[in-house]
Amino acid sequence: MSEKASDDTQQGTYVEDEFTRDTAYIEDRITDGGEQWPVEAGRYRLVVARACPWANRAIIVRRLLGLEDAISMGICGPTHDANSWTFDLDPGEVDPVLGIPRLKDAYEKRFPGYPKGITVPAIVDVPSGGVVTNNFPQITLDLSTQWTRFHRDGAPDLYPEELRAEIDEVNERVYTEVNNGVYRCGFAGTQAAYDAAYERLFTALDWLEERLADQRYLVGDTITEADVRLFTTLARFDAVYHGHFKCNRSKLSEMPVLWAYARDLFTTPGFGDTTDFAQIKSHYYEVHRDINPTGVVPLGPDLTNWAEPHGREALGGRPFGDGTPPGPPPEGERVDPANNPLVGADGLVRV
Amino acid sequence: MSEKASDDTQQGTYVEDEFTRDTAYIEDRITDGGEQWPVEAGRYRLVVARACPWANRAIIVRRLLGLEDAISMGICGPTHDANSWTFDLDPGEVDPVLGIPRLKDAYEKRFPGYPKGITVPAIVDVPSGGVVTNNFPQITLDLSTQWTRFHRDGAPDLYPEELRAEIDEVNERVYTEVNNGVYRCGFAGTQAAYDAAYERLFTALDWLEERLADQRYLVGDTITEADVRLFTTLARFDAVYHGHFKCNRSKLSEMPVLWAYARDLFTTPGFGDTTDFAQIKSHYYEVHRDINPTGVVPLGPDLTNWAEPHGREALGGRPFGDGTPPGPPPEGERVDPANNPLVGADGLVRV
Repeated sequence: MSEKASDDTQQGTYVEDEFTRDTAYIEDRITDGGEQWPVEAGRYRLVVARACPWANRAIIVRRLLGLEDAISMGICGPTHDANSWTFDLDPGEVDPVLGIPRLKDAYEKRFPGYPKGITVPAIVDVPSGGVVTNNFPQITLDLSTQWTRFHRDGAPDLYPEELRAEIDEVNERVYTEVNNGVYRCGFAGTQAAYDAAYERLFTALDWLEERLADQRYLVGDTITEADVRLFTTLARFDAVYHGHFKCNRSKLSEMPVLWAYARDLFTTPGFGDTTDFAQIKSHYYEVHRDINPTGVVPLGPDLTNWAEPHGREALGGRPFGDGTPPGPPPEGERVDPANNPLVGADGLVRV
Repeated sequence: MSEKASDDTQQGTYVEDEFTRDTAYIEDRITDGGEQWPVEAGRYRLVVARACPWANRAIIVRRLLGLEDAISMGICGPTHDANSWTFDLDPGEVDPVLGIPRLKDAYEKRFPGYPKGITVPAIVDVPSGGVVTNNFPQITLDLSTQWTRFHRDGAPDLYPEELRAEIDEVNERVYTEVNNGVYRCGFAGTQAAYDAAYERLFTALDWLEERLADQRYLVGDTITEADVRLFTTLARFDAVYHGHFKCNRSKLSEMPVLWAYARDLFTTPGFGDTTDFAQIKSHYYEVHRDINPTGVVPLGPDLTNWAEPHGREALGGRPFGDGTPPGPPPEGERVDPANNPLVGADGLVRV
């Protein structure tokens, strides 16, 4: 067992050469009526990096629910050193609300000498400047269930009570086999560990290919938390995981059902318009020098294929249930069209 | 400028971070009626590694021309250390004809202290045990033009006199832009060198895509030396270059014309049946630790798509001109069906 460099996309250890994700997070929760961390508009800042699939989930959910005015967002750049994520995209390389150059400063503010991974997403208490939580699977669920007072009109229910058991079950398998499965392939220390990881990953993708063949979304007939969690891995598949992590039985674009499913979500407001391919590629290829020593970022693949018609409307389904899609993202939160060939000047995906 | 480890698939230097192939070879020639090295059945041994694209050319040409009885073949394993290729696939790990464990021994026999790359293909003079030539572009041309007395009945003319100027011209562009172009991408020392290499490679592939759209073969209406030289790069494209060398604008299988052209050749006796995917992947991923530090070999891609119908017969053309295809390879020279999913027990590609 050996420690890996701190990095929220690869925070983990090796047990018998198999990459195992560390799951020691700050597990505080922001809850409606909570004593220490009550839901309160303007008090908290969600810190993300667009590159990171775990953070991308929170970006999507916040946008689908229309929480932009209630919870502000700080955006770290795609690359970082051993001290982790920095606000190098901001003027003066300092977060304009927290006034810090490094996310680590907010972890230290809460817990001096904080010994674990400095990860995104993290929610920071603006008045005290300390991190409240970086417990990513709970963060998105709490945005759905605790922040309801601040949801926009027409916000979808991403975690409907009657479907929670099924969503949880799907999420569990997607998490261990797919979200983490790609990392298990990429960071395998031996051929045997890689071979086993590859079989697990593609077994799960085959299961999803079958599950989604005649249903538009993973659970029920609307978009849920389960779709958000699968999407952020699929969005990175051909751009990064296929080559960088050797997840190469095929490209996502060669798995017809999953590929159409991914394109359907991609062209749904909240998904493709929060996907920054350039930052995604930059992060993985530049930070993981242990598997890409030169740090060279591939120019491919051609990603314009994300705009091809997906045909999934034929399966029915109501993307937002009784709700409506979100409008364009606020101006300061739009993905740079240079970083995603499908995003227009208004920040929405063009189809 | 810095030296790279000796390896015939990456023998080269860096000039301003651009990988530049060394071209200092032993340029002796075996010629019909030649004084020092005359064409003579049974005298020479062609030493190859199936993994290597430059050696694969010679394997294909020897087989197409039916020179198996005139020139024997020694086969090195796919991986090697700093001392280069070894006969580790042979009983006792010694070449049964030359009686040596390392190809380097034959280079040293000819030139003690030989300072340059120990490369395949190499032709060894069996009586003296020394390398005659490793000048790969000349080797295949001489098999075609100097060994005519020993060609099988029905051997094709791979270098027809009236087409030589055009073949040479196509070969030159394919060599600098494609055969070497993939290495220039993979061994680029900086992002700028990689970016330039990628543009050059795909510009050339676009040119080939256009050139081959309505002609079945690269030059004339039969298979020539030009097709052999392009094929060995295309055969490695999705299996290795796409991921390992970051040649990833698209897979070969996403370039419709080139992909059909490659499959047409693959299913022609002499091409797919000399392609050993397992050894190819093993070589690149295990030897190039500078760009793949773990040495893990990807399990993908699924290569069964090579057997899909190519439809190129509709373009006309006469693969072997007035000649005929070769029969199955001799038993000792068949590619292990475990290493190429399309090869049958008789050594031929099944379609």
